[in-house]
Amino acid sequence: MPLPTSWTQPPPEPCHTSAERARARQAVLTKPPGSLGQLEQLAITLASVQASDTPEVDKIYISVFAGDHGVCDEGISAFPQEVTTQMIANFAHGGAAISVMAGELGARLEVVNLGTVGEVPPLPGVVDQIIAPATANLAIKDAMSQEQLEKALNAGDMAAQRAVDSHSQLFIGGDMGIGNTTSAAALACALLGEQPQNLVGPGTGLDAEGISHKAGVVKKALQRHGDNTNPLAVLASLGGFEIAALTGAIMGCAARRTPVLVDGFIVSVAALAAVRQQPGVRRWLLFSHESAEPGHRSVLNALKAEPLLYLSMRLGEGSGAAIAVPLLRSACALHNHMATFADAGVSDKSGA
Amino acid sequence: MPLPTSWTQPPPEPCHTSAERARARQAVLTKPPGSLGQLEQLAITLASVQASDTPEVDKIYISVFAGDHGVCDEGISAFPQEVTTQMIANFAHGGAAISVMAGELGARLEVVNLGTVGEVPPLPGVVDQIIAPATANLAIKDAMSQEQLEKALNAGDMAAQRAVDSHSQLFIGGDMGIGNTTSAAALACALLGEQPQNLVGPGTGLDAEGISHKAGVVKKALQRHGDNTNPLAVLASLGGFEIAALTGAIMGCAARRTPVLVDGFIVSVAALAAVRQQPGVRRWLLFSHESAEPGHRSVLNALKAEPLLYLSMRLGEGSGAAIAVPLLRSACALHNHMATFADAGVSDKSGA
Repeated sequence: MPLPTSWTQPPPEPCHTSAERARARQAVLTKPPGSLGQLEQLAITLASVQASDTPEVDKIYISVFAGDHGVCDEGISAFPQEVTTQMIANFAHGGAAISVMAGELGARLEVVNLGTVGEVPPLPGVVDQIIAPATANLAIKDAMSQEQLEKALNAGDMAAQRAVDSHSQLFIGGDMGIGNTTSAAALACALLGEQPQNLVGPGTGLDAEGISHKAGVVKKALQRHGDNTNPLAVLASLGGFEIAALTGAIMGCAARRTPVLVDGFIVSVAALAAVRQQPGVRRWLLFSHESAEPGHRSVLNALKAEPLLYLSMRLGEGSGAAIAVPLLRSACALHNHMATFADAGVSDKSGA
Repeated sequence: MPLPTSWTQPPPEPCHTSAERARARQAVLTKPPGSLGQLEQLAITLASVQASDTPEVDKIYISVFAGDHGVCDEGISAFPQEVTTQMIANFAHGGAAISVMAGELGARLEVVNLGTVGEVPPLPGVVDQIIAPATANLAIKDAMSQEQLEKALNAGDMAAQRAVDSHSQLFIGGDMGIGNTTSAAALACALLGEQPQNLVGPGTGLDAEGISHKAGVVKKALQRHGDNTNPLAVLASLGGFEIAALTGAIMGCAARRTPVLVDGFIVSVAALAAVRQQPGVRRWLLFSHESAEPGHRSVLNALKAEPLLYLSMRLGEGSGAAIAVPLLRSACALHNHMATFADAGVSDKSGA
């Protein structure tokens, strides 16, 4: 299976003209200039990526990528590995946080199963793209082969295509995989040249001793991996199937002119790998929230990202991005529907 | 006109049993404990103030209180005073930020006109409670008489009653009044014992020189006012009609068991005056956002408030609160509709 073309070709650029038109409109809406804060730039960015004077984010596509991690052998998670499988059923049955939020937002939700240790029965809304029951234990060997990585990247690319096929205006990728904050921390360390103790955190709820052990596992993995910062090599060595698929989905969206609202730590690491491979991907990304997982800040800094929310969330599944969607919708509504000073006969700052 | 009873009587307490039941439910929903961050406490607080196992914020009442300020004579605003009148028309015609957001939220919106220098024609959705064309110039004399203050507090109390009469589940108060960040900064200084240079900011867009002049005006007002910290005396001396009405509305809502989602700097100062008069009011308050207006942080600290959003907004009108409403709705939806570990057959942290 070849790499997706989004891996090798730069994405298109968002529309500069739409951005400039949106910026000019924000300056004449009936409010003190700048007083809508981040919502103003949000509207400008959405106008730019949608090449529209009236941006909107009504149609949203959410893909939750799920996969198991061999590194669970090292005892790095507060939750048992079977939870990955159990949560896939919970997504499908509507009981998970992202399921509830997808309903609230009127969003399309799918789960892409890349491989779990437990057996997943046929379930509505679950796309089977099974690569293996789990990655290999990244502490002692490469997490996946080049062929497995290509499958994962293509699984993500196909999700991006489905989002485009259903005329989605925004893509949200989510993650499910017990052990994946260990993989994400290892990936971030390798891509950023950071030390494990700065990026490893509690994940689903480790105590201080657990975090220390987890940092040791990441350190061992990084020693094995060496100093190769090539995104393909890093993802194969230290990744998870769902994280690599997220990288593929993000690049696939950018290639297809579809903006991505990036979730928390896991998805941001996938985005970092994508941007390292194709820097132009960055222009198609919006950032939803800063996670309580401590490594997220460094990844956001590397991506020059200012997220919208700081709610101490750390759930994954794309839930933080889903929670932020109404902010995008509000930014669009204000941009599209507020009166201008001239429309409303309101004096502007100079008293004119 | 007597003071509203909410001024002299402590409000009821929110329901402790509902809070405890909500806290217990949050612990068994299918997510790592605590992983929804501030949304968990938000759901617990809403359950408590609504005395409900299934809190919701579908029905929202927004009152924007408008009034003019005599202190505009001192040249303390970037916008001319006639904008207060013009914006009342803009609210009524649907062109203002809060009008757009009220539509998006399906909220009831009213404007309470407490008195403007310009003439306001009869407009749909505008309640006339005119006290005077403007407050007196607080730099040189008391902003209002005791009688005017009582009228303003009662105007707010009546808005709270209208919110209850329309079965609203949440109240948002907004402000419109050119010059009102000067009044709010003076009030906050008097109530907190702070210095003007720490709490005075750009408002609608002053430059450094303008801010310095504004701080001088507030300093002059505080010297005239002296060290009386009684909320009634402080509001009469340094307040605005719309700020006093907001205080009355907030106290009226608490007295009637209706939670208030507090907007930015102006509304937070009104809330501070309310809490100083009746500390029990604090339990009925939720905080939406931290404004870019620098004095807001001190007021939030005094209220022990952790707002949900930090978007550098500084528009007023209740707009920051309106923007935060979907977070409350999401918190409720997750609380009410997520599956428990037992429901979904998902292993919890101990692997049980």
